[in-house]
Amino acid sequence: MKKYSTGPFLSQIEVPSDLREKFSMEDLPQVSDEVRQYIIDVISEIGNSHFGASLGVVEMTVALHYVFNTPHDQLVWDVGHQAYGHKILTGRKGVFPTNRTKGGISGFPKRSESEYDTFGVGHSSTSISAALGMAVANQYKGEKERQHIAVIGDGAMTAGLAFEGLNHAGFEKDANLLVILNDNCMSIDPNVGALKEYLTDITTSHTYNKVKDEVWNLLGKISKFGPDAQSVASKISSALKGSLLKQSNMFESLNFRYFGPIDGHDVVGMAKVLEDLKDIPGPKILHCITRKGAKYKFSEEGNPTQWHAPGVFNKDTGEIVKIVPKSPQPPKYQDVFGHTIVELAEKNDKIMGVTPAMPTGCSLTYMMKAMPDRTFDVGIAEQHAVTFSAGLATQGMVPYCNIYSSFMQRAFDQVLHDVALQNLNVVFCLDRAGLVGADGATHHGAYDLAYMRCIPNMTVCAPMNESELRNLMYTAQQKDMGPFSIRYPRGKGVMTEWKTPMQKVKVGTGRKLTSGNDIAILTVGHPGNFAQGAIEELKASGASIAHYDMRFVKPIDETMLHEVFTKFDKVITVEDGCLMGGFGSAVIEFMVDQKYSAEVIRLGIPDEYVHHGTQQELWADCQFDQQAIVATVKTMLQLEVTDLNTAVNE
Amino acid sequence: MKKYSTGPFLSQIEVPSDLREKFSMEDLPQVSDEVRQYIIDVISEIGNSHFGASLGVVEMTVALHYVFNTPHDQLVWDVGHQAYGHKILTGRKGVFPTNRTKGGISGFPKRSESEYDTFGVGHSSTSISAALGMAVANQYKGEKERQHIAVIGDGAMTAGLAFEGLNHAGFEKDANLLVILNDNCMSIDPNVGALKEYLTDITTSHTYNKVKDEVWNLLGKISKFGPDAQSVASKISSALKGSLLKQSNMFESLNFRYFGPIDGHDVVGMAKVLEDLKDIPGPKILHCITRKGAKYKFSEEGNPTQWHAPGVFNKDTGEIVKIVPKSPQPPKYQDVFGHTIVELAEKNDKIMGVTPAMPTGCSLTYMMKAMPDRTFDVGIAEQHAVTFSAGLATQGMVPYCNIYSSFMQRAFDQVLHDVALQNLNVVFCLDRAGLVGADGATHHGAYDLAYMRCIPNMTVCAPMNESELRNLMYTAQQKDMGPFSIRYPRGKGVMTEWKTPMQKVKVGTGRKLTSGNDIAILTVGHPGNFAQGAIEELKASGASIAHYDMRFVKPIDETMLHEVFTKFDKVITVEDGCLMGGFGSAVIEFMVDQKYSAEVIRLGIPDEYVHHGTQQELWADCQFDQQAIVATVKTMLQLEVTDLNTAVNE
Repeated sequence: MKKYSTGPFLSQIEVPSDLREKFSMEDLPQVSDEVRQYIIDVISEIGNSHFGASLGVVEMTVALHYVFNTPHDQLVWDVGHQAYGHKILTGRKGVFPTNRTKGGISGFPKRSESEYDTFGVGHSSTSISAALGMAVANQYKGEKERQHIAVIGDGAMTAGLAFEGLNHAGFEKDANLLVILNDNCMSIDPNVGALKEYLTDITTSHTYNKVKDEVWNLLGKISKFGPDAQSVASKISSALKGSLLKQSNMFESLNFRYFGPIDGHDVVGMAKVLEDLKDIPGPKILHCITRKGAKYKFSEEGNPTQWHAPGVFNKDTGEIVKIVPKSPQPPKYQDVFGHTIVELAEKNDKIMGVTPAMPTGCSLTYMMKAMPDRTFDVGIAEQHAVTFSAGLATQGMVPYCNIYSSFMQRAFDQVLHDVALQNLNVVFCLDRAGLVGADGATHHGAYDLAYMRCIPNMTVCAPMNESELRNLMYTAQQKDMGPFSIRYPRGKGVMTEWKTPMQKVKVGTGRKLTSGNDIAILTVGHPGNFAQGAIEELKASGASIAHYDMRFVKPIDETMLHEVFTKFDKVITVEDGCLMGGFGSAVIEFMVDQKYSAEVIRLGIPDEYVHHGTQQELWADCQFDQQAIVATVKTMLQLEVTDLNTAVNE
Repeated sequence: MKKYSTGPFLSQIEVPSDLREKFSMEDLPQVSDEVRQYIIDVISEIGNSHFGASLGVVEMTVALHYVFNTPHDQLVWDVGHQAYGHKILTGRKGVFPTNRTKGGISGFPKRSESEYDTFGVGHSSTSISAALGMAVANQYKGEKERQHIAVIGDGAMTAGLAFEGLNHAGFEKDANLLVILNDNCMSIDPNVGALKEYLTDITTSHTYNKVKDEVWNLLGKISKFGPDAQSVASKISSALKGSLLKQSNMFESLNFRYFGPIDGHDVVGMAKVLEDLKDIPGPKILHCITRKGAKYKFSEEGNPTQWHAPGVFNKDTGEIVKIVPKSPQPPKYQDVFGHTIVELAEKNDKIMGVTPAMPTGCSLTYMMKAMPDRTFDVGIAEQHAVTFSAGLATQGMVPYCNIYSSFMQRAFDQVLHDVALQNLNVVFCLDRAGLVGADGATHHGAYDLAYMRCIPNMTVCAPMNESELRNLMYTAQQKDMGPFSIRYPRGKGVMTEWKTPMQKVKVGTGRKLTSGNDIAILTVGHPGNFAQGAIEELKASGASIAHYDMRFVKPIDETMLHEVFTKFDKVITVEDGCLMGGFGSAVIEFMVDQKYSAEVIRLGIPDEYVHHGTQQELWADCQFDQQAIVATVKTMLQLEVTDLNTAVNE
């Protein structure tokens, strides 16, 4: 690991108490600059990290650790990809260059990593609820001086969970809770929704505070017109107090004391406000205006979505390093989705596109551009995305609701209760299904095969390549398909010529890709390519291996399974999903129900949380990559290890 | 089915067009009275139904169907247990007495039942999202005159999904959407949270409207003090407009036009307001004040929680018929939970109780009364309930978070991401797990074993009786237990002497209840009693049947399973949960992984939505009750049917 130098102030800070003890308030701008520079120095070289969000909260981070007695005071970062400054100031400056690499620190706060990480995050909008829990617990324990701070973005604030937290917190009037609304008008893409407009409203010219001040001043003026006018003015004043002071702000409607908006890049000003707020009991909200990518010329002036996670870049020129491959590369599955939905929607005017705040990530941007009236970014609101799609479907539309597999966990009930129970034709495109790599445990799409499979009426499938994804997307819009979920992984596919003509697939049918006699490998989704590789690798061993790309987990291809269990007594199943209740379980449920008996080894994600690393590392760790399949075949067929070596050497 | 007579007006109404064509606005109070009377007449006799909620919206229902062109205009009832008046007015008057009985009409709106039921409901807070989807679809189709109305209670409004819907709707400025806020200050229990206080605030003395009017009047007065004062007053007036008119109301903050509050029991007034609102485009909200159980003396004056679903009652005296059993009866599992948590919390001061709006339903009321500072009703907010519990747990508390199994679907991500990933000791008490009976498909707790089992770190267990529930609750609070879920069914247990001393259970161990040699029955949870009954019933057949109450689905008792699969080649698994990925799947995963082979028949809920009926009827339909077990044993052991009959006749 390369060592990076830090500025003179930051080099004196290992933990926040150093910051508090060694520096005065006047030093904070310099500390902030050095933290920012360190982030730029490291991330521009290591790449593979978030960027803009952490730059936007450098001053806030410094001010928070300066004012509050962390970790005794509890600081909860919502989502957490903005917490790099926090990690640097809390004992992890030295290991920061290992960010998001296997064995290195996580890109998100994580309780097992540091006592300063009070709550593990990754998915958005959990901070208010978590910090309220902490505040209520400590109040009950009599630790009334402890402060609990939730830092949440305006994007995360649109998720229902955040609102539920506010609604409860406003009712816990003694809870020592400060919510910092980090308002930068962005999710990963520009933020949307009515709340965003409201926040812009109170931030710009006609601010709530400004109106309040103006009215107060003018009432003062009126009182100069004599005693009668004075008394009327005073009456107006008190009538307004109830309304303007209490009810004129959405957060105050919910019993939060509202402060701001203030400049989130003025670290001294912010530290002073935080000092003041310490002494105010009960739930309160501080509205801070920040800019994603702040104070670094290129991210500040550039496209904030691009600078969300730019990869490696030249810090002096702002040039983002694009690795130009020597040969044509397969596209990302995301782009296949993005182009294909436009192609389909051009022919079928019932198709609509829905995404909860991930248009760029899932490449719905293509459709958004081509057909803005049929494409909906509903904000960070997975539950709503699904029920809204159900509403569209009742009117005959065919919504393609694209949600990352791990975020779909948020909308499980809506899929079950609003879509599948009514057998509505909503197409769920589960992006980033399976192990996602560097984002780690919070973001792996490990569970969808298990949690979708138990839902009646639901079709569950996964393409092995780009062409199959297109075919399944084409199939999903056919008449009377009901709820239809298609899962595909993060990142690149396997075909350079992927824009194949689309064909309807018979629902519930697999594909026999390779015939064989000794053993059958059953796969679903992209690990089918691992199986193909394994068969190639094992060719020289003389083993006769069949490979079935089952394609559908539900309805599963029973004809094919009858063939498999009639013919084979050794079977391997492979999936990029959890072993508990997943695809392999579906296969053995069939086997046992039909009274077949075979040796079945199921490969997939074991029953534990998988941490971060590259996808290749994690597939290998979880033992369902090509090598693992080869090893499993060898064990089951009792092939000598030397067989293969010999074969390879021949 | 008994026929009930209706009043002279209602008898002329089969469908809403009759209401619109045959009656004038002046007739609506009479129509409303007759609808209410019909509900009282029927429900008081058939029992087994919701009551107070439907009484509270009779006038609203009549006004809505009178003013809007249903079903062309789309009316979505949130939750739906208040929709009896709607059902009576939309072709189901005659079959209304079959409400919630097997083969009869559902207690909730259901698309398959009527074209007037535009969206199937049951779980709360889906109506805004669904109606918005309809509005957006019809706007796209050019059907701009169609109206879309979501009727949602103030309780349902606290759930995050409702907020997500509002946030998106406020952004769809052309969507023809009317949200009717049915504000009765109640969920099933009295409503809680900051939003409730806010609504009360704007409804009572210092209403938003009143303040607005007063200020406007006073400003008028001031302008009398001469031209200078006049100009200042006008300046104030315009400064306030931005604030008071636009921002002073929470819903207007979200771009909704807000109207109200109006009296929800004045049917003519309401019809007139609805007529006016028809012509106002874009998202709008009408705030109606109603009373649960309105205009029926006894429910109006009585305890609204009791009158939520009172059972059979004497409509003339208001006396609720209590069936007094001849012998002492086992308690409800709910009450066992309620008393036991108090007992535990008295000894362990770290225990806290959390419920999302179901204190009476889950009997957390006992703890709420005994320890109000340690018991939290967080409103209809399952997601928050779980993440809030996670926050409590980080500070060393042991929260018992009690959520109905089917509602826990709403918090799947929070369980996975906020609790289990961090291995926090939150105890999930999954109430109403399994088939719940009359509430039907939306409320069956059919999936929790499958969706909880795939979560790493999670302990998943189910007691076979009251004493076991107590032991598991006792065990869950022990040190380092991590996330611990205990599921139990709706309704009565099996022990009259249930208050047994509590014992720690070794996690991951089952109980062998009956030894035998021919076949093993493996159960989890209450169906263990069916197995015991079956063994008793089969005694005379001479079959030697073993019964294992596995108790834990995860970690599953591997020692016990080794014993089972070593000894038996015929195994039956029984669960009150879905067969796809549930307990039986866990058993066969073990069997196959360990290379055992046996004939295993899994009994449980099949892969389809199960509708309403009594629990006994549904257990039988799904074929996992005592009779089904007997039949399965007979088939597997090839016992002659006559064997048993002979035996019984002896």
